Amino acid sequence: MTKLLHMAIAGTGIAVPEAVLTAAELDQRLGLPAGESLRVTGVMKRHTAVLETAAQLAAAAARQALMNAGMRWEEIDCLVCASATMDQALPYNAAMVLAELALGTHRLATLDVGASCLSFLQALDLMSCAIASGRYQNVVIVSADISTFTTDCRNLRENGIFGDGAAAAVLRRSEGASRIHAARSITLPEGVAFCQIRSGGSRFHRRGFPEHSEALFEMRGRPLFALVARELPGFVDALLAEAGVKREELALLIPHQASRQALDHVAKMLGFDDGRMVDVFGEFGNQVGASLPTALHFAIHRHGLQRGQKALLLGSGAGVSIGGIVFTY
Amino acid sequence: MTKLLHMAIAGTGIAVPEAVLTAAELDQRLGLPAGESLRVTGVMKRHTAVLETAAQLAAAAARQALMNAGMRWEEIDCLVCASATMDQALPYNAAMVLAELALGTHRLATLDVGASCLSFLQALDLMSCAIASGRYQNVVIVSADISTFTTDCRNLRENGIFGDGAAAAVLRRSEGASRIHAARSITLPEGVAFCQIRSGGSRFHRRGFPEHSEALFEMRGRPLFALVARELPGFVDALLAEAGVKREELALLIPHQASRQALDHVAKMLGFDDGRMVDVFGEFGNQVGASLPTALHFAIHRHGLQRGQKALLLGSGAGVSIGGIVFTY
Repeated sequence: MTKLLHMAIAGTGIAVPEAVLTAAELDQRLGLPAGESLRVTGVMKRHTAVLETAAQLAAAAARQALMNAGMRWEEIDCLVCASATMDQALPYNAAMVLAELALGTHRLATLDVGASCLSFLQALDLMSCAIASGRYQNVVIVSADISTFTTDCRNLRENGIFGDGAAAAVLRRSEGASRIHAARSITLPEGVAFCQIRSGGSRFHRRGFPEHSEALFEMRGRPLFALVARELPGFVDALLAEAGVKREELALLIPHQASRQALDHVAKMLGFDDGRMVDVFGEFGNQVGASLPTALHFAIHRHGLQRGQKALLLGSGAGVSIGGIVFTY
Repeated sequence: MTKLLHMAIAGTGIAVPEAVLTAAELDQRLGLPAGESLRVTGVMKRHTAVLETAAQLAAAAARQALMNAGMRWEEIDCLVCASATMDQALPYNAAMVLAELALGTHRLATLDVGASCLSFLQALDLMSCAIASGRYQNVVIVSADISTFTTDCRNLRENGIFGDGAAAAVLRRSEGASRIHAARSITLPEGVAFCQIRSGGSRFHRRGFPEHSEALFEMRGRPLFALVARELPGFVDALLAEAGVKREELALLIPHQASRQALDHVAKMLGFDDGRMVDVFGEFGNQVGASLPTALHFAIHRHGLQRGQKALLLGSGAGVSIGGIVFTY
């Protein structure tokens, strides 16, 4: 049903906080035997924001993406922030990033697109529609998440997997082969409570619910994994059918870096356990909303995804939502 | 530059919390002389959420909009939440609303679009692009904000103006005259700190900044008003020029219900102080992200906006951003 969207990813960039927490350091901090945190989480190291704000990381990633695209801010008419978490409750993230960028007199539109860990994917799809419609010419999408403040690493399996960071992409109208073939997402409300942070919004504000106002990240990993694993094969089949693209035509699978177990499962289940899957989980952990664009960055800059090649962006996120985009780079 | 976007608003709906706080009650609560809060704020009554969650209000408004459109959920392929505030920090608002709606086996996409008080306007524009691109057929956009939990009404002028609520619109592809002629927005980062809630995100999380973790809404009303008032005339001229529409062709101005002063100023400055401006501020106060779609609802259901008539959606929001859409209903 979707028309082809003629959009090209002109450049990408990433940024991580300065502080690094290695598996060995985490073992020591938690009083665990050497190797234990790596065995449980699969994360060798993750970056944790101590001094940096999400807007600062986002600005750094966006600048790198723009430089990589060989473009100037004056050519950009919309800045989209597609993070899973907020920097402040108000204003929205993209306004905070714009202030951080200090672009002088250049005026542009800013907005947020949000869908937990699928925020970048939804933004890529929507902004491609906006470019195809002639609404915007060149768009920067940036995802920046600082989630480690809200996790409790003593719960290694469900909290020890996260890392902070940001990643950005520059989109422009494509005159060549670059395009989105199909985009699809579904939300499974039966899993809405499988992954959540109750505080931070109007529901459990301290005035009414002081006991919840400091709530930390909660994940029910097993039912979440089971729900996504049940839906994913049919979801991917429908997406590829809509795109008219076969699995073997895909140069790369670029998945959300959810967890070691999830990545291994999806690679095997979908037949991408032959080196065609981008996997940076061990280096960065699960970077929440920044995870998918970080994987996209490495698809291009490490795996050498070439213009004209097809790839599949795929992920799941709190909600619970599943989303995918089949595109030609 | 924008192509015409063939999109029709098929239906609208609103929802407010049960509890009402009148000007007289507020006077009494604050120990003010009778009439004082009304004199300063211009708000006769506002609804304040005591029992309701933002997702519940959103679900009620969305159901009403769908009924008004004469459509069923099975026809909707995307649910967009366009609020200024979060319900919880995670997952995103639209996932919370979907869970509240309990739609059974119907599967649809969900996502958030955020831009403070311009969230609905940005969502309307983007989702019109998505409909024009063939990405979605029928879309529900809902804005729900519970902001009164974070305001301190003792500061009448800058905090006593807010009210809680939700409003929704159903969009569908238009075969007739209904369309967006032009949409435009700019962000003025010099005003990023004029209107903010510091807590609720990663920047001032309680772990690092316990003194900020309970931060309330802050507004610097005078510089905010001055900044927007300076930019607005040129902004509106550029928007109307892009749309090829003259002020006198507009049946209605549908503004964000920012404040009594802002509404009076914009009506006079733009020449809509002749009854062509939707003004529900006295009844609801500033409903933040829900304000603009609430005004849209009353444009249709009270002012009798007719199919084929042109109108201007216009607003400003924390960021500071200014945005407008010229459309034929």
